[in-house]
Amino acid sequence: MKISGRHYRTIWPTAAGSVRVIDQSRLPFEFSTVDLNTLDDAAQAIRTMVVRGAPLIGATAAYGMALALRANASDAHLDEAERILRATRPTAHNLAWALARMRGALAGVAAKERADAAFREAAQICEADIEQCRAIGLHGVEIIRGLANASGRVVNILTHCNAGWLACVDWGTALSPIYTAHDAGIQVHVWVDETRPRNQGAALTAFELAAHGVPHTVIADNLGGHLMQRGRVDMVIVGSDRTTATGDVCNKVGTYLKALAARDNDVPFYAALPLSTIDWSLDQGRDIPIEERSSTELTHITGLGSSGAMETVRVVPEGSPVLNLGFDVTPARLVTALITERGSCAANRAGLQGLYPHRQETR
Amino acid sequence: MKISGRHYRTIWPTAAGSVRVIDQSRLPFEFSTVDLNTLDDAAQAIRTMVVRGAPLIGATAAYGMALALRANASDAHLDEAERILRATRPTAHNLAWALARMRGALAGVAAKERADAAFREAAQICEADIEQCRAIGLHGVEIIRGLANASGRVVNILTHCNAGWLACVDWGTALSPIYTAHDAGIQVHVWVDETRPRNQGAALTAFELAAHGVPHTVIADNLGGHLMQRGRVDMVIVGSDRTTATGDVCNKVGTYLKALAARDNDVPFYAALPLSTIDWSLDQGRDIPIEERSSTELTHITGLGSSGAMETVRVVPEGSPVLNLGFDVTPARLVTALITERGSCAANRAGLQGLYPHRQETR
Repeated sequence: MKISGRHYRTIWPTAAGSVRVIDQSRLPFEFSTVDLNTLDDAAQAIRTMVVRGAPLIGATAAYGMALALRANASDAHLDEAERILRATRPTAHNLAWALARMRGALAGVAAKERADAAFREAAQICEADIEQCRAIGLHGVEIIRGLANASGRVVNILTHCNAGWLACVDWGTALSPIYTAHDAGIQVHVWVDETRPRNQGAALTAFELAAHGVPHTVIADNLGGHLMQRGRVDMVIVGSDRTTATGDVCNKVGTYLKALAARDNDVPFYAALPLSTIDWSLDQGRDIPIEERSSTELTHITGLGSSGAMETVRVVPEGSPVLNLGFDVTPARLVTALITERGSCAANRAGLQGLYPHRQETR
Repeated sequence: MKISGRHYRTIWPTAAGSVRVIDQSRLPFEFSTVDLNTLDDAAQAIRTMVVRGAPLIGATAAYGMALALRANASDAHLDEAERILRATRPTAHNLAWALARMRGALAGVAAKERADAAFREAAQICEADIEQCRAIGLHGVEIIRGLANASGRVVNILTHCNAGWLACVDWGTALSPIYTAHDAGIQVHVWVDETRPRNQGAALTAFELAAHGVPHTVIADNLGGHLMQRGRVDMVIVGSDRTTATGDVCNKVGTYLKALAARDNDVPFYAALPLSTIDWSLDQGRDIPIEERSSTELTHITGLGSSGAMETVRVVPEGSPVLNLGFDVTPARLVTALITERGSCAANRAGLQGLYPHRQETR
């Protein structure tokens, strides 16, 4: 999508052999890019959330493996690279998916060909992600169009965290139907959850919607329930970091609370996700490992200081312990439908198997 | 309660004729007091949340009227003081309650006696608040004791916003049962919601629990649902800024989301409140006016900077609109019980009328 009129992806290889990413830890106040040149660069970028969002984590891990193999294409280093990258973030399923896809593509490839093959495969993962996100947008826009036609007025859509193009390579998952609707002239307005503790909604979703010209309003995570009670939300759409074979949706912590409010107020609740987010090995959301992150994400907040420089302030008193878990699981029973690159389906095993019959056979 | 070993109230008259309050806008990093000498001082302190919390707002408004009458005890000025103070915060019912009580106490009092009578009545409002909060603690501790006896382990209690002694004159409403339990040797641990956008949980609840030595952990507002899903919350207890005659509870925005999660996970959900919070004129929570506050509460965050001074940083990009509503309404159907100074009751008309039969007669 565009920033200041120029089209960007979130990750791309440079002519000089680096992998360049947008530094999302500095958005929305500072737009800069970072060049990844080594396995450690890639792992560190994922760990510190220079890149974040399930699909982009997968794409970065794929390029990380390519960078690792360029330095040392041995079997041992391939194993080591996979181990290091897999440990960067425990919850996002795309990470494991992308690494498995890379292993598959590299199987039987001679060591001296491996780096080139890995770069090609990483690029294909990125292209596939863009196509999937585009398809999610085309399927999801029909839901928005239906609401617009039914009401004859602007469609108010609440989203949590950032599942936009910044979370992917382009287009996004949850935001792709919104961009597609906006571009098609359907009037939409997005309630953007601030999304504590890392503020990806206020920082990233607001930034990318503003850059594309989509009307939106930033709200505290606490406000969505009240807005639904007052009829000011027509639908909720979120992304997913991992989805079970039974349709449970693991996403940024706080998603579950919005799903409960949506159900209590008869507001449809959708999760938009590519195939790569589905963990076919899991039947229960409670088996998904929930990442615990640094307490400083909650105790400190970074923003634009009065001097114009980025500054960090402490907001929790020194003596108070903090618990910072990054995700929660929304049970399938609260999900109106899943929107995937193959269409929408019920959030249950039959629904997913209907879209992915191959998975049905191989399980 | 105590700060650094010294007992404080949140508001008290000084020998010099001022009304002194703790400046809660500077906590938890700076403990300081402010002297209110005029009606405008009091109104400004309420409006800017130097003082906040429904009971303390009422107490400050009462003293504000006394300060106004000391300057000018005419009927016209009495009316003017009431009008100005009533407009400071629209949601908290104690504000209207305290002003009505002051008007009642001053009815028939000659102008030259009014200021003294008003100071006496304001002091009595404060004493009554302390007694009520103490009584709420004594009733509420029995619920905590029951959970402790049933499980034989520490009782995990989630609270939202600050309904502690800093919200009242002393003891608090939601936190009074917790202090009472802790002092009685019952093992409690409090999950403290950060409470965006003003962070009263992280700033005030964490501060006062730490000062009193109560074990607690600060969490993002988004985390409570997940903790309930995992069995890590035994009860929820919150305050109330206004309660309808039918038991709907208006409290800090986000409370409704926690009540939904509590219901979904069979966790009991309590609201602790004094009589003065009940609006007997209202049957429906949706008729309660919801205060819209400045967008800067969401776009900017103040905390302790690296230099050791308080600093403010912007966290929402310039071009993004913001909506900042301060409260939401939790329907009575989600409230396990109301804990009042007269005991606990069901959150419905019959429950409240059972505790306050006089109200039943006069309606």
